[in-house]
Amino acid sequence: MTPAVNHRVVLAARPVGFPRESDFRIEEAPAQEPADGQFLVRVLYLSLDPYMRGRMSAVKSYAANVELGEVMVGGAVGRVVASRNERFAVGDAVVGHFGWQEYATSDGAGVEKIDESLAPISTAVGVLGMPGLTAYFGLLEIGRPRPGETVVVSAAAGAVGAVVGQIAKIKGCRVVGIAGSPEKVAYVRDQLGFDAAIDYRAAPDMSQALAEACPRGVDVYFDNVGGETLDAVLRHINMRARIAICGMISEYNLEKPAVGPRPGWFLLVNRARMEGFLVFEFRDRYREGLAALAAWVREGHIKYKEDIVEGLAAAPRAFIGLMQGKNFGKLLVRVGKE
Amino acid sequence: MTPAVNHRVVLAARPVGFPRESDFRIEEAPAQEPADGQFLVRVLYLSLDPYMRGRMSAVKSYAANVELGEVMVGGAVGRVVASRNERFAVGDAVVGHFGWQEYATSDGAGVEKIDESLAPISTAVGVLGMPGLTAYFGLLEIGRPRPGETVVVSAAAGAVGAVVGQIAKIKGCRVVGIAGSPEKVAYVRDQLGFDAAIDYRAAPDMSQALAEACPRGVDVYFDNVGGETLDAVLRHINMRARIAICGMISEYNLEKPAVGPRPGWFLLVNRARMEGFLVFEFRDRYREGLAALAAWVREGHIKYKEDIVEGLAAAPRAFIGLMQGKNFGKLLVRVGKE
Repeated sequence: MTPAVNHRVVLAARPVGFPRESDFRIEEAPAQEPADGQFLVRVLYLSLDPYMRGRMSAVKSYAANVELGEVMVGGAVGRVVASRNERFAVGDAVVGHFGWQEYATSDGAGVEKIDESLAPISTAVGVLGMPGLTAYFGLLEIGRPRPGETVVVSAAAGAVGAVVGQIAKIKGCRVVGIAGSPEKVAYVRDQLGFDAAIDYRAAPDMSQALAEACPRGVDVYFDNVGGETLDAVLRHINMRARIAICGMISEYNLEKPAVGPRPGWFLLVNRARMEGFLVFEFRDRYREGLAALAAWVREGHIKYKEDIVEGLAAAPRAFIGLMQGKNFGKLLVRVGKE
Repeated sequence: MTPAVNHRVVLAARPVGFPRESDFRIEEAPAQEPADGQFLVRVLYLSLDPYMRGRMSAVKSYAANVELGEVMVGGAVGRVVASRNERFAVGDAVVGHFGWQEYATSDGAGVEKIDESLAPISTAVGVLGMPGLTAYFGLLEIGRPRPGETVVVSAAAGAVGAVVGQIAKIKGCRVVGIAGSPEKVAYVRDQLGFDAAIDYRAAPDMSQALAEACPRGVDVYFDNVGGETLDAVLRHINMRARIAICGMISEYNLEKPAVGPRPGWFLLVNRARMEGFLVFEFRDRYREGLAALAAWVREGHIKYKEDIVEGLAAAPRAFIGLMQGKNFGKLLVRVGKE
C-alpha cells in the first residue's frame, strides 16, 4: 500500500531577514516506495523549531544547510505504513528527521521507535524529544545549577525554556523566566511554578526588572534569545556564573550580524563562562535524559503545552510566527490525522 | 633606621579615556615607622600591569578601586630595611602589594619572601610572579591545550603572553602570537620559538592573517586584548574551542563600553566556551605554579625579557605607554637601587 501523493514543503528562496511565505513552496510528488531495508512513514506531527532558520541560510552552521528546492528539514512523528526493514513494523510510532512532508522513506538511520505507554506520541518531538533533551543536558551539564542558585531562562514558555525552568525548580533553584506576553508570563509563573517572570516586551527596563526578579543575582542563564536580553542579564551575573548558549532567536533574522556590548568585561570581572552547546553532543546519554524526563512528566513535576496548527500547508506561516514569538507552547503541525 | 622621606604616586584624577600624566600626582610623606608586628620595605622594582587601569576608574571591578588621593596599587619587589615582625628580617627580599612608592609598611599580609637562588628578584613580579602564574593557570586550567592543538595568544610579547606561548610550546602545541610591532613579532617567533606571529598593526586583514597562521583553526585563544582581535579569532575557532579571557587592554581606555559583533553564534556553532579568570582563584596552587615556572626558566624552556624604566617619577608615563603597547617585555620601574 503506497499512497499516490506526497505533499512536501521545499525551500524556494533563502530568506533575507525574516522569512516570508514566498521563501517556501509546496510541491506534490509521488511517495517513494520503500526499497529493501527501507520503510515508509506517514507523518503525523511535524515539529517547528527555531534552529530551522539557520538551515535556510547559506551561512556556515553546525549542520548542513537546506539547498534550494530541497525539502525543509525537521523532526517529526509518524507511523510506519509500509516496511521492508526488520526493525520497523507497520503500525510502529516513530520519530526521526522526516522533514516537512506527508510521507518519508527511511532506512532507519536516526529513527527511534516511540514508547506509546509513556505519553502522547507528539511529545517525542517535544518534552520527551529534542527540546526536552536540550533543556535537560543544557541546564544540567552546561548550566550546572546548585540548589539555592538563581536560574534565568529566556523564551521561558517555549518548548525548551519551559522544561529548563521546571528542571531548575526540581533541582531546588530560584527560577526566573523571560517571555513575550502577559499570558506567557502568567503561564510560567502560575502553571509551571517559576518564582518570577518578566514580560520583556512590557518591561520598561529589563535590567531593572532582572534586578527585582533576581535579588541574589544570576548564577545560571539559559539563553535561547541572545541580543539585548543577554546584555541585560550579563549586568546581573554572579561570580562564576554559567551562561549556556542554546539559541539566539532575536538575532536569526537580522540582515547584518548582530552588534552589541562586548561581554568580555562581565565574564572577566565575575570569572564567568559563556558556552555554546548542542543537544547532539549528548546523544550517548539520551536514554538517561528521556528516562528522567518521562518520570518527571509522569509524576507531574514537568508539565507541557502544545500549540498545534492544522495541515502541512500551514507550516510556513506557523514557522514565521515562531520567529516572532507568536506560538504559545511547543509548536507542532498536524500533518496527518491518526 | 627609618628614612625621612617616602615619595609616592597617588591617583589625582579618574582618567577619561587614556590616562594622562595629570591623573597622577607625586607626593612626599615621611616613611612610616613600623609598629609592633610590622616591617618597612624599601621598594626596588614596581610592576606596571594593565589591570591597574581598572583600579583607576570608578566602575565596579574585581577588586577595590583606588580612591582619589590614595597611593596607586601595584605589586612590587623590595627589601626589608626595618622589622618588628618575626617572619621578616632586615635584608629579606620580599614581594607584595606595596604600591607606587619608595617605602611601604606591612604586617606581612600578602607578602612573600623571595627565594633569591632561583632567578633575579625582579622576576618575582614577572615570570615567577603574578604574570607568570596568570599565564600558567589561565592557559592550563582555562585553555586546557592538548598536544597538537593550535594556541593563539595576544599581547604575545608581553609579560603574560610570552609565558603563555612558551608553556603552550612545552605542551606540544602549535603557537601563534599576536603583537604590535615587527620587533615583537620577530622576538616571539625567533627568540621564544612561537610557530608564527602576526603584527596586528601591520596586517591588512587580521582574519586572513589568522587563517594563514592557523591552517588547522584555533583551539585555544588566550585573550589579553579583547576588541577586534577577539572578533577576528572567533571566526577561526574550532569545535570545542576554549577562549580564556585574561584581559582586554584594547577596551580599557574607551570612554563608552565597547561594542562589537556578538560572539554567541560562534560559540554555539562550535560548542565553544569563553571564560573569564583571575589568577587569584588559583592562589592555593601558587607553589605548584612557581615550581613549574622556575624549573622551566632554569632549563631554558622559558625566556623572559624586562623593560625597565628608571625612577618612580617615570612610572606614570611608563604606565601610559603600557596602555599603548609601547613597552617591550615585562614593564618594571626601578624605584630604588640595591
